[in-house]
Amino acid sequence: MSVVTQSELTRDKALRARAAAVIPGGMYGHLDAGRMPARYPQFFERGQGAHVWDADGNEYVDLMCSWGPVLLGHQHPKVEEAVAAQRAKGDCLNGPGPVMVELAELLVDRVAHADWALFAKNGTDATTTALMVARATTGKRKVLAARGSYHGSAPWCTPRLAGTAPEDRSNIILFEYNDVASITAAAEAAGDDLAAAIVTPFRHDAGFDQELADPEFARALRALCDRSDAVLILDDVRCGLRLADGGSWEPLGVDPDISAWSKAIANGHALSAVLGNDRVRAGAASLFVTGSFWFTAASMAASVATLKAHQEEEAVQRMTRAGALLRHGLESQAADHGLSIRQTGPVQMPFLTFPADQSYERANLFTGTALANGAYLHPTHNWFVSAALTDDDVDRVLQATDRGFQAVSREFGHE
Amino acid sequence: MSVVTQSELTRDKALRARAAAVIPGGMYGHLDAGRMPARYPQFFERGQGAHVWDADGNEYVDLMCSWGPVLLGHQHPKVEEAVAAQRAKGDCLNGPGPVMVELAELLVDRVAHADWALFAKNGTDATTTALMVARATTGKRKVLAARGSYHGSAPWCTPRLAGTAPEDRSNIILFEYNDVASITAAAEAAGDDLAAAIVTPFRHDAGFDQELADPEFARALRALCDRSDAVLILDDVRCGLRLADGGSWEPLGVDPDISAWSKAIANGHALSAVLGNDRVRAGAASLFVTGSFWFTAASMAASVATLKAHQEEEAVQRMTRAGALLRHGLESQAADHGLSIRQTGPVQMPFLTFPADQSYERANLFTGTALANGAYLHPTHNWFVSAALTDDDVDRVLQATDRGFQAVSREFGHE
Repeated sequence: MSVVTQSELTRDKALRARAAAVIPGGMYGHLDAGRMPARYPQFFERGQGAHVWDADGNEYVDLMCSWGPVLLGHQHPKVEEAVAAQRAKGDCLNGPGPVMVELAELLVDRVAHADWALFAKNGTDATTTALMVARATTGKRKVLAARGSYHGSAPWCTPRLAGTAPEDRSNIILFEYNDVASITAAAEAAGDDLAAAIVTPFRHDAGFDQELADPEFARALRALCDRSDAVLILDDVRCGLRLADGGSWEPLGVDPDISAWSKAIANGHALSAVLGNDRVRAGAASLFVTGSFWFTAASMAASVATLKAHQEEEAVQRMTRAGALLRHGLESQAADHGLSIRQTGPVQMPFLTFPADQSYERANLFTGTALANGAYLHPTHNWFVSAALTDDDVDRVLQATDRGFQAVSREFGHE
Repeated sequence: MSVVTQSELTRDKALRARAAAVIPGGMYGHLDAGRMPARYPQFFERGQGAHVWDADGNEYVDLMCSWGPVLLGHQHPKVEEAVAAQRAKGDCLNGPGPVMVELAELLVDRVAHADWALFAKNGTDATTTALMVARATTGKRKVLAARGSYHGSAPWCTPRLAGTAPEDRSNIILFEYNDVASITAAAEAAGDDLAAAIVTPFRHDAGFDQELADPEFARALRALCDRSDAVLILDDVRCGLRLADGGSWEPLGVDPDISAWSKAIANGHALSAVLGNDRVRAGAASLFVTGSFWFTAASMAASVATLKAHQEEEAVQRMTRAGALLRHGLESQAADHGLSIRQTGPVQMPFLTFPADQSYERANLFTGTALANGAYLHPTHNWFVSAALTDDDVDRVLQATDRGFQAVSREFGHE
């Protein structure tokens, strides 16, 4: 397999010029290619398995997986067949389809802490609803969250303050991830008004080395919530179904009361879910939360098919194997090029930094060069492995990253 | 065409029993059939044109249109073909598809006040983002909203307080719809901190007779926003594309700065949009708002096809014609039965109440009887006409409503 060199982004450039006129800033949110190194395409045309094609027809091995949603590979046949079959009957109707019950049962069966499920569209819907369930359950207001953790883009949690009012965040108290003393201090600041703590399965903040959860920290957070009659919320939106068959803290033996899910649960179809235990069921039932598309049947059929295929195909095992192969290959390549790198996070959600970087200058050159040679990585955000990533795909990525390391060592020397 | 009598809801009952175990309260939000009269099914199987089938195979002429999203009828061939073609290439990728630019251009062209578009998934995403754009533009906090108007189910706007904190709503100041004095008072209460006013195109609150916007009121609200350097937001989520080809206040000659759209813009596919003028463009560009599925191409392809078909098929005109036929028929039937009714709202979004009702007892019997005879109406929420509703469909609805009026006059006499 030979490395393909990226062609000029002619169509992409023309589309960007048109977009600049009719979309604020030309693009927004996490898919804004304006925040990426040069040569990153803004617009995409096609996806198949572990491969994506940009609007100019360049093919890339996909290590972002649409920032998580693509779990089993693009266009997974069983998922797409389930969606097509449901769509041929009906999708958005005057009530949910029978598939909603099947999906809720499947999730309650699959995720250890869950006694019930509620569905929405965005990850932000799921985290926001989780906070509402916690407040309705406890009658209290304050929520502990880790500084820098991403929980969505609603006013209470968006990482950029533009457009928010101080009141949107006045009930959020920050702690430091993996720091037991800081959660104790944050809980003290909440006094007798602590409704919940929300936490990600590991520290997957963009721009930083990733940090696995210290089991001691996870247990301390659980104990703190129990002591304070507060609700423990696991934000599994980004990690769910990549790290474990069930919830991402099951291997740690720490059960949240509520978990928030989205991204991968329907292999790219728009769906999110809040799962909860019986302790918070009445609180959940007391809310009025809804959306015009929260009950659509096709995305739920996609999720049922995804959950089944995820287990049948041993997706976690496959992602772990492919991720480990990639990590090992990158480690060897960096050593061969005399470059110091750090690889952090679980291998299914890999991330690579250059300790010598001041502001991602090596990371930008590395990922930009890999991109030009057919591998789609990200300079500052964790990557995502899909279960469709074959050994050949990993080889192809490694050919591209070899060029990336070569470029870094040429430009910045051995540091 | 003969009236079909609804069969027993055997499968629906079994599904509800299972749902009660794994979904809080058995169901939630606006599609919770527990809030409806007896015999309303919870689960739906199929939709085609202006017809829907519940999980037990009962067919109904659909006058709820999934609470708005179904505009051109279920399974509109051009929309579904566009979705299938886009899905065969790719939907959820590392960037939006070229179709995003086409859609933004189409909306900016179609909606008079709009210079730009930004897409999301829920109506609530659109209204919440609109508030953020207004705050980012003005640097101010307070927002005027009509008492009882529905703007979504986020903590700042959900009609039920469970799960919210007082701070979530501390920047919202209420006024009375169509009352110029009350908007003046509300703006005074905001002092020099008025960021925006958000308003629906007409007063479509559930449980009440609908009320069209007084043009004087609309102009006064626009003038007040101009005077206060505040942003006028039209919440067109429910009405958009049913009342006009463009924005719903275009016939009034009142342009908002921002309009929020969802429901019907992709004929049942999950999409929402914020449209804005150049005054608020920089504010919009300053936000970080996003979602894993906000950029998916298939729902945007659905929207492009919907907008084109909407114009080609003269959908507004068709809905107006069918709605007028229905309104006229209902008026005659009620008179024949010696019953006093009120029909309010635009004919494309009809609503019927019985002035003698204390707590919807006639409305429940009327809609429940119509349902049992093959017409899906709603006792307390406005209905929705689709462009697929034929004269035969209206006839069939009127056969069912005749039974409904008969039941009301038998049970409650001529009042």
